[in-house]
Amino acid sequence: MTSPVGLHRVVQPTGVLPQAAWRLDTSAAIAPNEVRIRVQRLNLDAASFRQLSEKHGGDGDAVRAEVLEIIATRGKMQNPVTGSGGMLIGTVEEAGRRSPLGLKPGERVATLVSLTLTPLVVTDGLARWDGRSEQVPCDGWAILFARSIAAVLPDDEDPQLSLAVLDVCGAPALTARVVSRYVEDRRRVGDPTPVRVAVIGGAGKSGSLSLAAARRAGAARTVGVVPVAAERDALTAAGLASVVALADARDPVGLSTAVTTALGAPADVTVVCVDVPGCEHGAVLATADGGTVIFFSMATSFSAAALGAEGLAADVTMLVGNGYVPGHAELALGLLRAEPGVRRLFAARIAAD
Amino acid sequence: MTSPVGLHRVVQPTGVLPQAAWRLDTSAAIAPNEVRIRVQRLNLDAASFRQLSEKHGGDGDAVRAEVLEIIATRGKMQNPVTGSGGMLIGTVEEAGRRSPLGLKPGERVATLVSLTLTPLVVTDGLARWDGRSEQVPCDGWAILFARSIAAVLPDDEDPQLSLAVLDVCGAPALTARVVSRYVEDRRRVGDPTPVRVAVIGGAGKSGSLSLAAARRAGAARTVGVVPVAAERDALTAAGLASVVALADARDPVGLSTAVTTALGAPADVTVVCVDVPGCEHGAVLATADGGTVIFFSMATSFSAAALGAEGLAADVTMLVGNGYVPGHAELALGLLRAEPGVRRLFAARIAAD
Repeated sequence: MTSPVGLHRVVQPTGVLPQAAWRLDTSAAIAPNEVRIRVQRLNLDAASFRQLSEKHGGDGDAVRAEVLEIIATRGKMQNPVTGSGGMLIGTVEEAGRRSPLGLKPGERVATLVSLTLTPLVVTDGLARWDGRSEQVPCDGWAILFARSIAAVLPDDEDPQLSLAVLDVCGAPALTARVVSRYVEDRRRVGDPTPVRVAVIGGAGKSGSLSLAAARRAGAARTVGVVPVAAERDALTAAGLASVVALADARDPVGLSTAVTTALGAPADVTVVCVDVPGCEHGAVLATADGGTVIFFSMATSFSAAALGAEGLAADVTMLVGNGYVPGHAELALGLLRAEPGVRRLFAARIAAD
Repeated sequence: MTSPVGLHRVVQPTGVLPQAAWRLDTSAAIAPNEVRIRVQRLNLDAASFRQLSEKHGGDGDAVRAEVLEIIATRGKMQNPVTGSGGMLIGTVEEAGRRSPLGLKPGERVATLVSLTLTPLVVTDGLARWDGRSEQVPCDGWAILFARSIAAVLPDDEDPQLSLAVLDVCGAPALTARVVSRYVEDRRRVGDPTPVRVAVIGGAGKSGSLSLAAARRAGAARTVGVVPVAAERDALTAAGLASVVALADARDPVGLSTAVTTALGAPADVTVVCVDVPGCEHGAVLATADGGTVIFFSMATSFSAAALGAEGLAADVTMLVGNGYVPGHAELALGLLRAEPGVRRLFAARIAAD
């Protein structure tokens, strides 16, 4: 039987899952439980694009050449330094008769599994991409496994906007789940203490969705932390947070002071959505005893988080942000529809790209 | 005021917490809220010792020289590759009048915060250490901050045994907390499904304590996964797990099959206690939808865990193992006293060192 998680596509080394593989088999012929997508656009992970762009000093041609080389060598787009990938948009070209994904040829979809485990072939040399944006126009094909996830794109939305929302849809879904748990636990024991939520990087894509999700899940007070005045003004105008605060997330004392001042107390739930290294300690310091930190940034250091919390004698639960939560695509697209502030921030980001 | 988290001891770079610092101030003179410890023994983190030992091909003199150089250069023991440290044992030499730790001169203590943030000076050149064990006899001094944690060692136990238990006491405490939550949640809704727990690396220090803690917290069925027959026999004899299974934790399919077979279903809670890289995918695959993976290994890759769960469309909660949980020292020492199997495994490990 063909592996639902794609083991049969692993070329090297054998026995590992596709995400851990060095190289994948990108054959266009699909197994009965697979789906082949005609790719139209790649959306590189922010941390990956940033690393590539900085490495090449913003030289778009060099960035494009390296992305092409990675994909040709590995049969997938996985940045060897950050380990991260991104997602793609395309059209269903062929769906195997035993695929459980329910996709039909011609449907426009976005993949919600990472490019790091998706067999991918580029056929146009990325000729339409200038190497200066995470959004990569592309022609080629990709393979989905039985346990992959893809969302059909809504007809009434700009696909680029939908893609940007779906790319980070795990963040608002997990934030909503964690915040709901605090709200329910307090309700059950009759504790009137309001649930306080801090989102570090609140003006970004995952950050603004997480702020909106936290409020809908019952957070009584939220703070969005941003690094610069322009983001402060944009997030304030979007109206997604009770308070917007300026702080450098890499400065533990500055960050925790900003959060505690804005919320009147440390946060019950702190969501880290900034893709720069060194935010672990500040997030822990900003969180109340018994609170939870959710790390969504791929720049998170496991050992810095674990040892930081221990070193601060901080009784906080720390979550590795899982990009998959059931219903995540619907929840995020729902927030885009219901929250004009989310739409405005996303539209501005896309326009700036 | 002197910083309770030790900011005043950070030499370079300024503004970061001691764990993130490159170099700490190791002055012997203490602030009113600090405590100075006369150090007798260091216990290097397993991942750190393994990396150093492998780097130097088991040459003890070279390992000792590098540890000495790290401590002299950085003012703390933090392995530059693994980022991890360890803990220490010693005697309280001087306690500042405003220290909240409640320690008195002459008390024998173990520090429960990492060496990665503890100012440390070695005065004997580690002359009594052969560089071939994680346990390092040592003379020198260390500084505790107001928010550091230290446990007074029990008089009736071998200090080396207590130290080994306290070194990993966060693991059983967090395991107990998470397992209890599943047990309580099911009880509340009248769900009779037994709570199943898998501990990867169940014969090790944190693993054996976690197995014992899971059972006491109400796990109905537990499996301890080990890599070799000798560990299987030792763990079986210790009687800490319902089942003991042999599997390579780096083989996702092999690991998940072993766990699912042993428990009759995937685990509700999977605890990763092996200090080798590449165990993230197997742990996720071995865990039931709605389950939790707790990563205690410092070899855990944040991005492998996050992207792996997403790529497998696995609805699992993933926790960064926090070494601090209130009451962790008492809980772990209590397990040592109550569970002869735990004591036997620890004694055997120490004898083998």
